[in-house]
Amino acid sequence: MPIQRIAILGTGLIGASVGLALRAHGYTGQIAGWDPDPAELAIAGEIGAIESAATDPVDLARKSDLILLSGPVFTILEWLDRLAPVLQSGQLVTDVGSVKGAICNCAESRYNLVHTAGFLAGHPMAGKEVSGAANADANLFDGAAWLFTETAGSRSMHPASRALADEWRTWPTKFNCRIIDLDATRHDVLCAWVSHLPQYLSTALTALLQDEFAAKDEVLPIGGRALREMTRLGASPYSMWRDVAFTNTEAIAASLLALEQRLAHLRENLKTPELRDEFERANQFRLSFPPPKK
Amino acid sequence: MPIQRIAILGTGLIGASVGLALRAHGYTGQIAGWDPDPAELAIAGEIGAIESAATDPVDLARKSDLILLSGPVFTILEWLDRLAPVLQSGQLVTDVGSVKGAICNCAESRYNLVHTAGFLAGHPMAGKEVSGAANADANLFDGAAWLFTETAGSRSMHPASRALADEWRTWPTKFNCRIIDLDATRHDVLCAWVSHLPQYLSTALTALLQDEFAAKDEVLPIGGRALREMTRLGASPYSMWRDVAFTNTEAIAASLLALEQRLAHLRENLKTPELRDEFERANQFRLSFPPPKK
Repeated sequence: MPIQRIAILGTGLIGASVGLALRAHGYTGQIAGWDPDPAELAIAGEIGAIESAATDPVDLARKSDLILLSGPVFTILEWLDRLAPVLQSGQLVTDVGSVKGAICNCAESRYNLVHTAGFLAGHPMAGKEVSGAANADANLFDGAAWLFTETAGSRSMHPASRALADEWRTWPTKFNCRIIDLDATRHDVLCAWVSHLPQYLSTALTALLQDEFAAKDEVLPIGGRALREMTRLGASPYSMWRDVAFTNTEAIAASLLALEQRLAHLRENLKTPELRDEFERANQFRLSFPPPKK
Repeated sequence: MPIQRIAILGTGLIGASVGLALRAHGYTGQIAGWDPDPAELAIAGEIGAIESAATDPVDLARKSDLILLSGPVFTILEWLDRLAPVLQSGQLVTDVGSVKGAICNCAESRYNLVHTAGFLAGHPMAGKEVSGAANADANLFDGAAWLFTETAGSRSMHPASRALADEWRTWPTKFNCRIIDLDATRHDVLCAWVSHLPQYLSTALTALLQDEFAAKDEVLPIGGRALREMTRLGASPYSMWRDVAFTNTEAIAASLLALEQRLAHLRENLKTPELRDEFERANQFRLSFPPPKK
């Protein structure tokens, strides 16, 4: 198989989980890693997500077949910029970033050219509200979608890079992911609705409750599963979601505005038949849901 | 023990779960039930939530020590009205309704008088997005709060009814509930925030997604845990939540308006440091959360 040496740049929750999933599903080549936080890098090594920890990430990237960029979107953009001049055809860069427009734009002029490395944008739709390699899980991607964004550039990358890309596309299937191809614009709109909106909504709700209830021991013991679930993502780190807000602003703002209007509509109809119609629409959506795994 | 004959009027999800929980935790007296839906009543009998199914609920109530009213708030109000004249001191009515102001107001002039039955308002903070006895669970209340609203009336109910109330207050503890006493007004405000707001929010979000995505097979396969969780309550039945909206309108509308304003604030600050502050407030709230059971 073409992929023999993998470099994971950013061995936090997602990066380390990819390493664990590769090992759990039969990958036998090398996996080396680097992280700006030495503690994260050490944990990734201890749990077996990587087998060697690099001190020089650029040198590591230079020696790898596949370089996986994992971290906040701006960090991925910085790596794309920094690595482009030191890599070459026959290598492949991929990522796990939550926004694809900004990342594909950045890669367009730097990758998939005759003498450059290839770049294939990817995005596993899995995560946790807690970050860090200590929370990594070989089964994190089980049952999730793994989105790929092929571009005119990625479709014409160097054949030696393309062979790596074709192999890389098979790994999420082994992790039990559904592979879905989306262009960057559609990806960012869909992810605004199904991932980014739920995140910022949960953050807003949770921050509101924090301000509303100075004495949290009055409200927390009363709350049940609904409160726990709807505020779970309130624990998510700003560092990750700042970059998403900056790079998918328009689609996120549109979905937030639509929800504000919907809430106002419901509030004005708490005692009218329109409330029934809203429940029916919501019921209908949930009927389309596949049953949860397990 | 004073409670030997229990009547459950409304053997749906909550009523049947109370029956199962009583049996699972050592209650040895009679449990009889009635439901407006004969199918629900039959299921409650089959799963062992009740041991006998009544055809005449008023006659059943007349012969019981404790009458548990379980169902939508307006149904509970109707039963309070209908049963008051046929019950007497030495009996106790309690409920599991989600709104306490309307229920305690209704009970005030009809119960807890010299010759009437006692009434003690209760509210287990547990439920599911699916209804019906078929979803009942003896462990539904495990780890949940069970709220009681004592009033001037309930504190001065007939001693024979009070003995039943004192025993009834011990059962949720056996179900592993936290017993919390709240006056009706505070109950309704707190429940608006931790239970009703999450419900109507999830309904609005889910209905919005239903309208936004005609082709749900484009969006559902992409969504992960966040989408599933934030829309779970979208499956909740209108029949239950219409009555909550009608009887706790003011507190719910206030919490919805506050959330709308909070979402607008976040939307206007997707690229400012205020976003960081919102994440920090939300993170802080979640740090106060007790870890989930199991």
